[in-house]
Amino acid sequence: MKKSALLIVLFLNGILLFSQTKEEQTIKEIYKSSLTNSKCYSWLDYLSNSIGARLSGSANAEKAVQYTKSQLETLGFDRVYLQEMMVPKWVRGEKESAYILDNKSKINVPVCALGGSIATPKNGLTAEVIEVKSIKELETLGGKLKGKIVFYNRPMEPENIETFLSYRGCVDQRSSGAKEAAKYGAVATIVRSMNLRLDDFPHTGNQNYGDLPKSQYIPAAAISTNAAELLSKTLKNNPKLKFYLKQSCQQMDDVVSYNVVGELKGSEHPENIMVVGGHLDSWDLADGSHDDGAGVVQSMEVMNIFKNIGYKPKNTLRVVLFMNEENGGRGGKKYEELAQANKEKHIFALESDSGGFSPRGFSIESSDAVFDKILTWKPVFEPYLIHSFVKGHGGSDIEPLTSKSIIKAGLKPDSQRYFDYHHAANDKFGAINKRELELGAATMAAMLYLMDQNYSLFEPK
Amino acid sequence: MKKSALLIVLFLNGILLFSQTKEEQTIKEIYKSSLTNSKCYSWLDYLSNSIGARLSGSANAEKAVQYTKSQLETLGFDRVYLQEMMVPKWVRGEKESAYILDNKSKINVPVCALGGSIATPKNGLTAEVIEVKSIKELETLGGKLKGKIVFYNRPMEPENIETFLSYRGCVDQRSSGAKEAAKYGAVATIVRSMNLRLDDFPHTGNQNYGDLPKSQYIPAAAISTNAAELLSKTLKNNPKLKFYLKQSCQQMDDVVSYNVVGELKGSEHPENIMVVGGHLDSWDLADGSHDDGAGVVQSMEVMNIFKNIGYKPKNTLRVVLFMNEENGGRGGKKYEELAQANKEKHIFALESDSGGFSPRGFSIESSDAVFDKILTWKPVFEPYLIHSFVKGHGGSDIEPLTSKSIIKAGLKPDSQRYFDYHHAANDKFGAINKRELELGAATMAAMLYLMDQNYSLFEPK
Repeated sequence: MKKSALLIVLFLNGILLFSQTKEEQTIKEIYKSSLTNSKCYSWLDYLSNSIGARLSGSANAEKAVQYTKSQLETLGFDRVYLQEMMVPKWVRGEKESAYILDNKSKINVPVCALGGSIATPKNGLTAEVIEVKSIKELETLGGKLKGKIVFYNRPMEPENIETFLSYRGCVDQRSSGAKEAAKYGAVATIVRSMNLRLDDFPHTGNQNYGDLPKSQYIPAAAISTNAAELLSKTLKNNPKLKFYLKQSCQQMDDVVSYNVVGELKGSEHPENIMVVGGHLDSWDLADGSHDDGAGVVQSMEVMNIFKNIGYKPKNTLRVVLFMNEENGGRGGKKYEELAQANKEKHIFALESDSGGFSPRGFSIESSDAVFDKILTWKPVFEPYLIHSFVKGHGGSDIEPLTSKSIIKAGLKPDSQRYFDYHHAANDKFGAINKRELELGAATMAAMLYLMDQNYSLFEPK
Repeated sequence: MKKSALLIVLFLNGILLFSQTKEEQTIKEIYKSSLTNSKCYSWLDYLSNSIGARLSGSANAEKAVQYTKSQLETLGFDRVYLQEMMVPKWVRGEKESAYILDNKSKINVPVCALGGSIATPKNGLTAEVIEVKSIKELETLGGKLKGKIVFYNRPMEPENIETFLSYRGCVDQRSSGAKEAAKYGAVATIVRSMNLRLDDFPHTGNQNYGDLPKSQYIPAAAISTNAAELLSKTLKNNPKLKFYLKQSCQQMDDVVSYNVVGELKGSEHPENIMVVGGHLDSWDLADGSHDDGAGVVQSMEVMNIFKNIGYKPKNTLRVVLFMNEENGGRGGKKYEELAQANKEKHIFALESDSGGFSPRGFSIESSDAVFDKILTWKPVFEPYLIHSFVKGHGGSDIEPLTSKSIIKAGLKPDSQRYFDYHHAANDKFGAINKRELELGAATMAAMLYLMDQNYSLFEPK
């Protein structure tokens, strides 16, 4: 090698080393800022304890819009604004009641209406129960289902390491169970709660009647896992037992609501937009501290961290707090609709919607080439115990984004406890650990920082 | 390459591939067994909810010995036996009381005596308070400490990712604070609880008067983090405030207690012993579900898993439930004493004593060469989200083991929540997630399995 060539190589290596060290240094500052000087925990305290449950269309959802907007306004964005849309409004009404009628003994069981469900008749309904483990089983049973309550009781598979895999493996019972059972003349459905542990919390969540004529809608409820076990056992002894269900929920007219957006113009490439977000709405049974209060405040914290460490992104940064993820996804759709109308170019979108637990890594939606590049960043994440980089879904709210060659990612926190709380009355602030929440925010900020620094690598060739 | 040489290479590769696949397959069975068919959670339920706090020398500690022995006897060991020893017996007595006397206002604060502390005079003691951030500061203050209560208020450092690092960075205030302050004539010490979050739980833990003459012992207590903040703030406004402390703990005579051991003879090398264990004793303020009920039942579960999947270790396996880790370490010492007396050869020891949280990896105490070999196993652990392999301490109970070239390891669970519960009244069964506990047990079983399969690699050359 010629001496001059050697010098160039050494010089380039030097730059590489320097840039590596600078990235490592900034990421260290990011984590330190989040663990020592963050606001996310107190924001979540307010969102959970002073506002509370934030189902789309509710007064609390509106309060959450106003509160987060006011907080974003303190963080140094160039502008903070709302994106208006119409959202579904479903109300639970009175607390549901249900019991098993086993000959003469009446055993009360914890249930809750599924989101989007219709009410039972005013005094409730009583019917025999047929237990199934899948929607497919309905075919075999056919006419036997007429006039019965279908009880979907396929549990989440415990042997998966990632609990979201187990969730995906049985959530069809909740989301489509009523629609399918109605076709066979069932009068209601009850579904085993999407929960890996045995406890007394019924877990709500969305269900959809699809194309079914309104006249064929039937009430759909979830039952706690303990009660599902009990009902199953009791049914084995007495297949003729009856089940009583009463719920008074109803679907109202759509109402106005908003996404909340904070935008900081990029210092070098303002035309390139990076989104970080979570969803503002929650189910109505609890604060929704994990789902998705955590994602909301972590996304806000990303901006707070950048402000605290004095980092000015080269590309435009948008913190987006999406409305209506839970029962309609209108916020994500509205965001994309406006992005298209404004011919915006999104280069990266990162969502946090898997709870405020210890972060483990990212689920990345990209080409193989981009994914391979991201894998080269693993070493800078390892000191923070972020090891898991997998190809997969970014998140529901960013799913509608269609910018050419956009990279999407989802924060992956430890998933073991998520379904203990998901959509249930115990998804409360007390279930949040401050440090776990802050580590998640820092991990998101570190990824956005690396994307911002390296965005040119992802330009379509 | 000659054709025959090529064939040999292909053949050896085949063996390697087969053995890799067999190891992967067994580890898959281990995790499946733990997540679908484990007993650890119900054992812990009994240990925590039917027995409860298990401080050395207490009636509950004795019950725990008998209970775990009876359970080990159901698991197919060749023998289950006790190792007798004398252990310290310290009793808390009546619930402590304390308040800040700020001029005329009296503010009650949550405190607890530190393990091994003496009582205050029967009616308590009242004195002015001097706040320090370190033991070193005492030197500077010298004579000013006479007649005062020393208040150690150096918080755990929030910016470390591993919380045990933060613990080690300030636990000297708890363990040696009283001994050191007594030398300057202080009348008592109160220490900020070893807890990263702000809450109302005082955290106990051992403290030691060392060589101090008994006549110079002073009472030592812990104060909750919230109350530590309050006391510090109040002191700033009123340095002359007084603090009242009353505790009636005492050190009794040593009593008999036991390690519990289950032993399964190795099918090929019975002379090689592998230990897996945790400690049976806990502090007295709560069930000790994380510290270290979790480690106890996870160690027991290792044997249950091997039984369920039909795995017969080549080397002798011992499940050891150590007594008295918290305030004396007598169990670990007794175990080693007997191992030496019996000229036993220990090749591996694995301890779980960092809580029942999601497992992240191992802390490994070995030569560099062995550590490098263990690192080659990382890929088989990755599907189970076990990524963190670091050189470090194995555990307190296995620390005394001195077998030549023994490898020691500690299970490393996620550490973020550990100090929320450690030695406090909230270290209860409700703070345990079943799956996290089971994943820890499976991770331990997988490591023991790999060590058992590969033990010859670690023989001293």
